[in-house]
Amino acid sequence: MLNSLSGWDDTIVALATPPGVGAIGVIRLSGNKALSIANALFSAKDLLKQPSHTIHVGYLKENDKVLDEAVISIFKNPTSYTGEDVIEIGCHGSPYIQQQILDACIRQGARLAKPGEFTQRAFLNGKLDLTQAEAVADLIASNTAASQKAALHTMRGGFSDNLKVLRDRLITFSALIELELDFSQEDVEFADRKKFYELIEELNLSTKQLTDSFQLGNVIKNGVSVAIIGKPNAGKSTLLNSLLNENRAIVSDIAGTTRDTIEEVINIDGILFRLIDTAGIRQHSTDVIENAGMERSIEKMKQADLVLYLFDAAESRSEITARKLDFETQQLNYLLVANKIDALEEDKAKEKLGDLDKMVFISAKQRLHTDVLKEKMVDTVLQGKVQNENTIITNARHYHALKEVQQSLIDIKNGLDNNLSGDLLALDIRRCLHYLGEITGEITNDDQLDYIFSKFCIGK
Amino acid sequence: MLNSLSGWDDTIVALATPPGVGAIGVIRLSGNKALSIANALFSAKDLLKQPSHTIHVGYLKENDKVLDEAVISIFKNPTSYTGEDVIEIGCHGSPYIQQQILDACIRQGARLAKPGEFTQRAFLNGKLDLTQAEAVADLIASNTAASQKAALHTMRGGFSDNLKVLRDRLITFSALIELELDFSQEDVEFADRKKFYELIEELNLSTKQLTDSFQLGNVIKNGVSVAIIGKPNAGKSTLLNSLLNENRAIVSDIAGTTRDTIEEVINIDGILFRLIDTAGIRQHSTDVIENAGMERSIEKMKQADLVLYLFDAAESRSEITARKLDFETQQLNYLLVANKIDALEEDKAKEKLGDLDKMVFISAKQRLHTDVLKEKMVDTVLQGKVQNENTIITNARHYHALKEVQQSLIDIKNGLDNNLSGDLLALDIRRCLHYLGEITGEITNDDQLDYIFSKFCIGK
Repeated sequence: MLNSLSGWDDTIVALATPPGVGAIGVIRLSGNKALSIANALFSAKDLLKQPSHTIHVGYLKENDKVLDEAVISIFKNPTSYTGEDVIEIGCHGSPYIQQQILDACIRQGARLAKPGEFTQRAFLNGKLDLTQAEAVADLIASNTAASQKAALHTMRGGFSDNLKVLRDRLITFSALIELELDFSQEDVEFADRKKFYELIEELNLSTKQLTDSFQLGNVIKNGVSVAIIGKPNAGKSTLLNSLLNENRAIVSDIAGTTRDTIEEVINIDGILFRLIDTAGIRQHSTDVIENAGMERSIEKMKQADLVLYLFDAAESRSEITARKLDFETQQLNYLLVANKIDALEEDKAKEKLGDLDKMVFISAKQRLHTDVLKEKMVDTVLQGKVQNENTIITNARHYHALKEVQQSLIDIKNGLDNNLSGDLLALDIRRCLHYLGEITGEITNDDQLDYIFSKFCIGK
Repeated sequence: MLNSLSGWDDTIVALATPPGVGAIGVIRLSGNKALSIANALFSAKDLLKQPSHTIHVGYLKENDKVLDEAVISIFKNPTSYTGEDVIEIGCHGSPYIQQQILDACIRQGARLAKPGEFTQRAFLNGKLDLTQAEAVADLIASNTAASQKAALHTMRGGFSDNLKVLRDRLITFSALIELELDFSQEDVEFADRKKFYELIEELNLSTKQLTDSFQLGNVIKNGVSVAIIGKPNAGKSTLLNSLLNENRAIVSDIAGTTRDTIEEVINIDGILFRLIDTAGIRQHSTDVIENAGMERSIEKMKQADLVLYLFDAAESRSEITARKLDFETQQLNYLLVANKIDALEEDKAKEKLGDLDKMVFISAKQRLHTDVLKEKMVDTVLQGKVQNENTIITNARHYHALKEVQQSLIDIKNGLDNNLSGDLLALDIRRCLHYLGEITGEITNDDQLDYIFSKFCIGK
């Protein structure tokens, strides 16, 4: 595969573990000098004579100065992450010592890797396609079961395998149609139009499945913002606490999830719900919707992926139906949450209010049916979509390329319908091939690659 | 070796790399179930059949749920860090995924390791003596060439090998003298008194070398505090900047060195000098020493390991000799730094001031002779001590035990001189053996071990 990485023949080195003090750290080398560089520093035995996938313990020395006692792991080309010779140096977790070892590797001829450069080499060496490479970064950033699952699935081939097969078939048709151009005087058809229609339809279906999944994919990757609103004393804080308390332990395991934000985050069935602080709404909420001074809070509510309207189950039916109408007029994604069914019995409340669509009866205080509420919250987000891991895309770049593919498919189909000349048809097909290829990385440009990999961490 | 670790037969697990997001993380298992636990999660092949020091790549799964693609390193008992079966799981650097893998290992029968527990097991299994185990923590905390070198040397056996040999010889004498007690009526001497004197002297010399090295060892481990004082416009800021600018690049490589303190840190010849902010002294410094309102600043100066008194080379000789006397009266460790020799020529300044002991002539502004100043700073700290790595101790615990050894050696010698009865002599010898054994860990108690290892990080 062609590439234009400056000096791709060189050997790169970087700290692969997080910076800071720990029990151990791992420094990674990749390139055709990786083995000889490690060997120059390793005193215990000749690493060049050791087989791949073996581990060697001994002292690292440079000019008789002992750097550390280290554990060397050997991965030989091509059975390594990058496809090149890779050496991992497990050393003591002192940033000072790690710097010493990095410096020594550089003096021996390595250069410091750029962010994502190991994965970029894996991509350029054909070990991963572009969607798989991007999934590596998603996996490292994953913080829920769902995001972990989606990233792992994409990393294992996921949807790109299917797209590649379809693209190869389209390439065949493209070649046949371009061949027809050479015989344009003779009115021949090498490309079977009926089968071509079928392929276009198949491509359309596959890509539609994927673009349809993006909303869910985005939820999985970025979470769902939730605004809890309602009159004073409707029980908003109690609900917030009861949702949080049950889940806080799970959330607090995820470092940095909640620290830098004023939102509270809970994980329900592997989806992150970000409960937005609606203090503003609480403050002025004698009349939640109409109050003119509440624009900012309403704006927040409108931006939320989901609105939980919390009210006392003793509230009048007419008021609640008015709210419901309001939310629907504003095209909000909402749930009506009738609270305090400990005070008023559930059956009586249902009788009085009617069991409206999108209504849940709970007691936040006594944590009655909060599990039902959570279930409804998840259902509302998934909206009946089965979480079929084969058809979820989480990456905006893929979404936009797929949208372009779909547009070109429409153009191709129109062209076929209208017996468009082969040369014009070929243009549309090439456009379709281009965007399909961009997704998996069969077609790339350096700027795009640089952009994608620059978002990786150093050492990956 | 006896031990009282609760459930030492169990298998421990911990994250060995620093917490946070990175390219990769390493989870470490140690114990007789380490291999079977890893094997239960690993889907690619049967790890139980793989040889030691080999690497295996594949997916980790629990109940068909994919956790991650991981790299498994196998270290079989006894050729591992702890002496037990050890498994290292290299996984993606997502804290969420690492938590999933840790949880899965725990469900398979591992328990979370306590701080330092891997190294504690290495000690209890005889892979390291206690000074070597302590040096592992020092190595991880090392942030200069000198602290790295001292920790590495101790970790490789360092001074404890010599102490162990001497202790074994003392044990032999101890046994012979206790044997004499059984024959006390017969006036026999199994222990050759002349050779015993020689051993006591040898022990005395060895331990004195070590206790003498502690001051330097402490400097190596904890750095040297330096107060730069002088009148306004003597050039303190310029000197500070010229010292810092040349070295800042080196220091900034060491994460967290300077962040949490108001001190500026520079590394000269592998020794950290912590330049204390003497803003207080600067503010009131029309007369540095006599001014009554400056007690706090003078206190700082007195606490400093080294005082740099900076003055204009045009200053009168009488004033400088007065300062010098002052510093010597206060028993401070100081250097007299004549600045601004760009304005007044060096020769003239020397002629005028005389080339006093502990005087350096520089121009901070033009960075003239600042290298000489640095050299003198290092010399002042080392005070002619040769940095013989064999005889440096950096650990206060060792220092205090060695002091006890020395006291018992004096008692033994006095006992021999005064023909003390064998039973009393035996008591002193046992005390000496006890403290020698405490250093290397041949004699330990659980509280002491718990204390030592509790200062380690988790996963080491």
